[in-house]
Amino acid sequence: MEPQGRYAQRGVSASKEDVHAAIAGLEMGLFPKAFCKVVADDLTGSPEHCLVMHADGAGTKSALAYAYWRGTGAIDVWHGIAQDALVMNLDDLICVGATDGILVSSTIGRNKRLIPGEVVKALIEGTEAFMQRMRDLGVGIRGAGGETADVGDLVRTVIVDSTVVCRMHRGSVIDNARIRHGDVIVGLASSGQATYETTYNSGIGSNGLTSARHDVFNKAMGQAWPETFDPGTPSSLAYCGDASLTDPLEGTPLDMGRAVLSPTRTYAPVVREVLARMRDEVHGMVHCSGGAQTKVLHFIDDLRVVKDDLFPVPPLFMAIQRMSRTDWSEMYRVFNMGHRLELYVPEELAEEITDIAASFGVEGRVIGHVERMEGREVVLRTPNGEFNYS
Amino acid sequence: MEPQGRYAQRGVSASKEDVHAAIAGLEMGLFPKAFCKVVADDLTGSPEHCLVMHADGAGTKSALAYAYWRGTGAIDVWHGIAQDALVMNLDDLICVGATDGILVSSTIGRNKRLIPGEVVKALIEGTEAFMQRMRDLGVGIRGAGGETADVGDLVRTVIVDSTVVCRMHRGSVIDNARIRHGDVIVGLASSGQATYETTYNSGIGSNGLTSARHDVFNKAMGQAWPETFDPGTPSSLAYCGDASLTDPLEGTPLDMGRAVLSPTRTYAPVVREVLARMRDEVHGMVHCSGGAQTKVLHFIDDLRVVKDDLFPVPPLFMAIQRMSRTDWSEMYRVFNMGHRLELYVPEELAEEITDIAASFGVEGRVIGHVERMEGREVVLRTPNGEFNYS
Repeated sequence: MEPQGRYAQRGVSASKEDVHAAIAGLEMGLFPKAFCKVVADDLTGSPEHCLVMHADGAGTKSALAYAYWRGTGAIDVWHGIAQDALVMNLDDLICVGATDGILVSSTIGRNKRLIPGEVVKALIEGTEAFMQRMRDLGVGIRGAGGETADVGDLVRTVIVDSTVVCRMHRGSVIDNARIRHGDVIVGLASSGQATYETTYNSGIGSNGLTSARHDVFNKAMGQAWPETFDPGTPSSLAYCGDASLTDPLEGTPLDMGRAVLSPTRTYAPVVREVLARMRDEVHGMVHCSGGAQTKVLHFIDDLRVVKDDLFPVPPLFMAIQRMSRTDWSEMYRVFNMGHRLELYVPEELAEEITDIAASFGVEGRVIGHVERMEGREVVLRTPNGEFNYS
Repeated sequence: MEPQGRYAQRGVSASKEDVHAAIAGLEMGLFPKAFCKVVADDLTGSPEHCLVMHADGAGTKSALAYAYWRGTGAIDVWHGIAQDALVMNLDDLICVGATDGILVSSTIGRNKRLIPGEVVKALIEGTEAFMQRMRDLGVGIRGAGGETADVGDLVRTVIVDSTVVCRMHRGSVIDNARIRHGDVIVGLASSGQATYETTYNSGIGSNGLTSARHDVFNKAMGQAWPETFDPGTPSSLAYCGDASLTDPLEGTPLDMGRAVLSPTRTYAPVVREVLARMRDEVHGMVHCSGGAQTKVLHFIDDLRVVKDDLFPVPPLFMAIQRMSRTDWSEMYRVFNMGHRLELYVPEELAEEITDIAASFGVEGRVIGHVERMEGREVVLRTPNGEFNYS
């Protein structure tokens, strides 16, 4: 599944097969097909409960935030990075059905020479503000501490991660093992403006950012801020786009920098309401993060997932493809291309789910369905071609 | 408290005052003077319980592991880094009295171009093996998952962090607010060989590693592996020692590389036994991590901590001081200099604690005492001089 394409040459991996090999010996937890690893509740010993402990971060998006902040003085981009680090966890957690009782610890690793206290302060403020906004919407998430380390010999600028933990009733876990023949797939749009967002969201999330950044922005950026990329990157792949940070992105109110920095949209308020109404009938949920539209392959056996009515590709992804000439097949494996969350449900629930999403200003639609087969496969039928992944 | 010395010029901070300013608005938790932040038990809602969620990592020690692995082929140094990332958390947790029911999530951020799957595998194996060794000794620590991210545009080589969570009875928390006039301080040696260690430990831990590495090793290391340090480091402070990785460290069975890489000793098995016998009588515990012998200043009011019978300075710290000519006053603030854990207890308990430590092959001794004063102060009376910190 690993592309020998631009993505791999930049030292990143959509499918991480060497990491999967490294963890092959570890136990898979109580629900091996669940989106997150679910373990026994060792904190209380209750056999009816379980725990989910999960880690992720903003990834290389912080390198772009650094350049934008240096270039424009906009300190608020760090609020977005804080949201990215949280939502990459939170939206993994909601896929197992957790929307309450979530505790967060944040880890910031910085090059103190380049990242002053005001940036750390903005990251911490952004973390607190985002959690408060979620609590106001009924999503129970709370900070439990954090660590800021000065590690300039390791980190070029700053790395922002978070770890979450949540305790659930075992019977409440959404286990993707229940995805079945006949299910429809409801996708929730990654771009637009939700009622709980303050500006238009480009849809980018926090995956594929190494590629997006280098494919969109021009050489001048690498010259101005060499600390924003690995000097080992082949020169032909380093900042090889034609945009500047403040060029407009056509079809959106954002400049290119703000578009690629769009804070990762959370679907937690929508999913909380969906689960409140129909938890037992949701067969599965997938956060289209690393692996993007092929992510579901980790969770299915003897099923074909057909996605034949995807959202129109949002302007930012069109721009990335146009500048990079990346194969469409790779585009769908690296970027979410229009929806970052998908729910696998009986057909008769689809309308209620899209209604709930619409009430939050998030567009939902049936983007495909699930079929019986031997083996497993994802088929994308798109205006840009038909692609098979297995 | 911030030194304008070599440590600060290398872009690291022993006292992190800008970080402390950034978090000044956050709530301090249920026990503001406890070593770790302790919060309400939002996972179960029990008013009798509380939670500790804590994050830390191996820091820049992994840059040295990288050089040693590249230079000698020794893959096992990554087991040590895994232990470092765990113990920096575990030994913070034991200071609030937690030695059981601990869950761990690990985060690895790597430059995939330089860090192949075999290193990730060694890190994961090292994590699992260390936790198993702890469980065999009655310390309940278990892995709950982890994340490996390819972030070469952020990370020069590899950064290894972990986050832990633990649930406790509120009544069992060791709160450093109980440290008082008349307490003696039992220090537990950081160097030597504990019964649960397989080789001599230099005592280094995972603090001060940026300084130790640059002060001990010579220019050839920076030339061979420029990816192991920030190119913004003043040249006079980058790898300005005279040692090679495989030079012997006199007075020890280790070469210099292995000495600086000595895996952080855990005191968890010792503390578990101490708490089993006298939990209610332990007034405080301090893990002498960032801030080293001055760390206790965070936890005291209207007390003077006098340390006047410290352990002999272990050979590695003597070598670092000799090569770097760092002020002794700064040495004691950056490096533990002989003990990395201290217990504040009534005098009559000291002997039993040192006996317990001895049964694990760890030397313990009364290194000082606590006095009433207005304000707060740490006084070190050492063969290398008398130093006051406040």
